[in-house]
Amino acid sequence: MNNMKTVIAPVNIAVIKYWGKRDEELILPLNDSVSATLATSVMCAKTSVFTGPQLTSDEIWLNGKKESFTNKRLVNCLEGIKAIAAKEKSVDEEFLKWKVHVCSVNNFPTAAGLASSAAGYACLVTALAKLYNVKSDVSCVARLGSGSACRSVYGGFVQWHAGTEPTGKDSIATQIAEASHWPEMRALILVVGDSAKKTSSTKGMKKTAETSELLKHRIEYCVPQRTTSIIQAIKEKNFPKFAEITMKDSNQFHAVCLDSYPPFVYMTEVSHKIVEVIHKYNEVCGEVKVAYTFDAGPNACLYLLEEEVPKIISLIKYVFPSSSPDNFVTGLNYEQHELSKDFLNKVGLEPESVDLLKYIIYTKVGEGPAEVTDGSHLLDQNGLPL
Amino acid sequence: MNNMKTVIAPVNIAVIKYWGKRDEELILPLNDSVSATLATSVMCAKTSVFTGPQLTSDEIWLNGKKESFTNKRLVNCLEGIKAIAAKEKSVDEEFLKWKVHVCSVNNFPTAAGLASSAAGYACLVTALAKLYNVKSDVSCVARLGSGSACRSVYGGFVQWHAGTEPTGKDSIATQIAEASHWPEMRALILVVGDSAKKTSSTKGMKKTAETSELLKHRIEYCVPQRTTSIIQAIKEKNFPKFAEITMKDSNQFHAVCLDSYPPFVYMTEVSHKIVEVIHKYNEVCGEVKVAYTFDAGPNACLYLLEEEVPKIISLIKYVFPSSSPDNFVTGLNYEQHELSKDFLNKVGLEPESVDLLKYIIYTKVGEGPAEVTDGSHLLDQNGLPL
Repeated sequence: MNNMKTVIAPVNIAVIKYWGKRDEELILPLNDSVSATLATSVMCAKTSVFTGPQLTSDEIWLNGKKESFTNKRLVNCLEGIKAIAAKEKSVDEEFLKWKVHVCSVNNFPTAAGLASSAAGYACLVTALAKLYNVKSDVSCVARLGSGSACRSVYGGFVQWHAGTEPTGKDSIATQIAEASHWPEMRALILVVGDSAKKTSSTKGMKKTAETSELLKHRIEYCVPQRTTSIIQAIKEKNFPKFAEITMKDSNQFHAVCLDSYPPFVYMTEVSHKIVEVIHKYNEVCGEVKVAYTFDAGPNACLYLLEEEVPKIISLIKYVFPSSSPDNFVTGLNYEQHELSKDFLNKVGLEPESVDLLKYIIYTKVGEGPAEVTDGSHLLDQNGLPL
Repeated sequence: MNNMKTVIAPVNIAVIKYWGKRDEELILPLNDSVSATLATSVMCAKTSVFTGPQLTSDEIWLNGKKESFTNKRLVNCLEGIKAIAAKEKSVDEEFLKWKVHVCSVNNFPTAAGLASSAAGYACLVTALAKLYNVKSDVSCVARLGSGSACRSVYGGFVQWHAGTEPTGKDSIATQIAEASHWPEMRALILVVGDSAKKTSSTKGMKKTAETSELLKHRIEYCVPQRTTSIIQAIKEKNFPKFAEITMKDSNQFHAVCLDSYPPFVYMTEVSHKIVEVIHKYNEVCGEVKVAYTFDAGPNACLYLLEEEVPKIISLIKYVFPSSSPDNFVTGLNYEQHELSKDFLNKVGLEPESVDLLKYIIYTKVGEGPAEVTDGSHLLDQNGLPL
């Protein structure tokens, strides 16, 4: 059916962080960022878009709830794709005039505090691009929905170029390497029980850009060097280098939040405990085997190679005991591993109180958005949610 | 008695933070710092020094416990003062050859995690200077004991000049203004229940100097500007300006700790709650009325003018209820104040769980070290602890 398209799209977790806009309206960043796209088999957004002459208004349903289509970012995405379609003459003019219905769901709990907007906007924009037969890069349209969404338009390892144009036309994402380039790369998302109400990313990065003196140095000196180095590390599959830059950049992002005025913090004492666990583990291994990175919240994303996964899960379970250990790890399968007493002694950490970590999502680097061709749409033939 | 001197010396709390050495041995800092000296009537170190031909070895008793005199910093202070005395010919050569006994106590709990070494070394060095009749500046000798001790050699508001000489001879403290210049200035020390073992200042600043890229920018750009501005604010008695720089510099110090590799943190969630309380209070007041600053630990020092003290104590008591409210505030006297429901509503904070704060020390900016002339020495006529 040509007036219905359904797409799934991945989340991505940055290793060089995006923090601070040079243009609030166009969502243009102050610095380049780099991320890995995570497998849609574990976590994804799924979006159906439908158009037809019978529709009287643009409508959207998010995770089963009807929402307003007046959200500016949403409108910008729809208009952005339609503008490209008009320019490319990829569909009839008439087709472009019809209203659209959008239905989107995440297959992971949004309550987990995981950045679902990146997957959601990448999914919406890709679905619209397929509906309107658009061929050119749509990452700059996804960016209008949520900055980091532009990175979810591609699989593997992705760079979002800050660009210099005032229009933002060069602020796009490009792929550094396919997921298959480094097939052993894995990610563990450690979901921390979040209590306090936190500063939103949008407000936080505005505050940092306006008040942090250290941000200037980060943007001018640190990020350009780190971006070059981590791209090289990815191309060379140099894990220790990749990991060290990832950790340093996460720390620096949280440092500039603290250097803002008033300061704000996203990491909790549990987050800092995770940092300590990873540094201890790497120290005992005598090599950097695992990296942590934290976005605008307390959850950790650990990057590591497949062979380390059983050991790290075992260590995390030891330090952060769970009252429901059977459901503690979701996602990919892994082999159980029992850490030796000797190893645990060397790490020298004691178990924390129960349930400081809610659960772990085990996933890997994966592909970009993909069209769903099995007919499992989220909207029916009338464009209404199923 | 010429072979016994007893001195009391104050603690000081920095408003522009010292973090990072350019010389580990000579304790030379990477940047200037600024502090206020706090009244010895509330918190002080007290030290007696005794010398005589009958003594067979240098000995020291700290807070009632005999300690080794082999500590290099201790030896450097003793030798430093003796060297000046020899140069000044302020006492007989023979007198200088005699061994010394030292006895030192703090009148505040060291367990509180308050930097007692600054008061302790300032006290020791001043007592030795009096014993040996030394007339010149001894802040550079106190610095050899503990960097920030050099600032406790003077009262009021003090600047520690980083200096540029490799010998450290220009790395000295000078007074910006007497305590009497700004007599309304008060300090509240909020003692937070400390649980975790923390990175020592010495180790922490070494790690930051070696690994933080942001520290370079702090030292080159931020600190020089802030030092100039806060000295001006002190001279003009411009509280809002003084307070804003104080808060920003505290935040930046903790930001560079987080930007270190591996990162380390001193502020706990209680510390961050205090930050939030102060920003909310200032916001409701429509003007910056209180500043917070945090050293290498979770305790806050609030700087504020006398008129704000009753209100702030009331607010702190509301947000951080205590199970022993009668002993919650020690130090200076203050008038009880009940915050209005309307004011508390505007601040919009709920009480936290009980006893997150251990207690509050209420003090003010005060004088530098002073000789105790009432004969209340800590050593007897034989140089042994009383």
